[in-house]
Amino acid sequence: MKRIGFTLVGIVALAGAVGYMSLARARADGASAPILGTLPAGYRDWRLISVAHEEGKQNDIRAILGNDIAIKAYREGKLPFPDGAIIARLAWQYVSSEENNRAFGQPQSFIAGEPTNVQFMVKDSTKYASTGGWGFAQFNDGKPVDAAGLTGCFACHVPVKARDFVFNRYSP
Amino acid sequence: MKRIGFTLVGIVALAGAVGYMSLARARADGASAPILGTLPAGYRDWRLISVAHEEGKQNDIRAILGNDIAIKAYREGKLPFPDGAIIARLAWQYVSSEENNRAFGQPQSFIAGEPTNVQFMVKDSTKYASTGGWGFAQFNDGKPVDAAGLTGCFACHVPVKARDFVFNRYSP
Repeated sequence: MKRIGFTLVGIVALAGAVGYMSLARARADGASAPILGTLPAGYRDWRLISVAHEEGKQNDIRAILGNDIAIKAYREGKLPFPDGAIIARLAWQYVSSEENNRAFGQPQSFIAGEPTNVQFMVKDSTKYASTGGWGFAQFNDGKPVDAAGLTGCFACHVPVKARDFVFNRYSP
Repeated sequence: MKRIGFTLVGIVALAGAVGYMSLARARADGASAPILGTLPAGYRDWRLISVAHEEGKQNDIRAILGNDIAIKAYREGKLPFPDGAIIARLAWQYVSSEENNRAFGQPQSFIAGEPTNVQFMVKDSTKYASTGGWGFAQFNDGKPVDAAGLTGCFACHVPVKARDFVFNRYSP
């Protein structure tokens, strides 16, 4: 009994040690680090996919841009998106424009205010195989959000699996 | 008296003829024709200036794009815009997205539906001197609207003369 007790303690301790080491290794390997350390070069020059407005806690107006690989796939209607495709979602505060309202003669105009955050979906079918081939990234004030803060991204995209997990359609 | 009568008839006839010829010449010169006969090549690939939403009779969501000359001027904060700058306003029906709402868990999401029309401001300080250096164009279903249908454009832009008659600011 004593021997079994010591063995159990040993197993638990070992499991604990392995668990700790896994976490330490993951941190050292950057497994919980953001998938993009910096904003992708030139993303603000990418071409437009579409636009949207979110009410609720987002309360933003947004543009969805794509790098050349993403735009080509969208325009050709090719699914799944090829590796290398990156989709960017830029968002700005949703702001009423008094200036525009005066021109229209009534309150009706909403424009982009200060930027809120920028999100990216990066296609790499090998690297991100467990999340539909997409890595998720977000930048607040140009600084990357730790991957741990983005673990919920993929689950939300599962309902649009038939469109390779991408919500936004291309607007002609 | 008869002589005066004939002279008057002659003057009126002459005036009428001149008037008719002016109109004919204007038509031949295309003075009432659209300033752009076709959509500017590659405008859908232009870079993003900003986004907006209009309620009211427009009821659209829109993206404002600029050709290279326009984008450069925006980013450098240069006013007036140089000749050759073109600003495009693409608009789509403002549509509630049930798919997005399900993902967010509440009704809050609005996306771009079918395209409505595309407008352009074309900078040529000589050709369009009488309207702040800007020519105005609109395309419905890819077809240009006659210039006569756009005579009201400039008056609406006068309140933003200080920004070279351009409403939209650049969104970073």
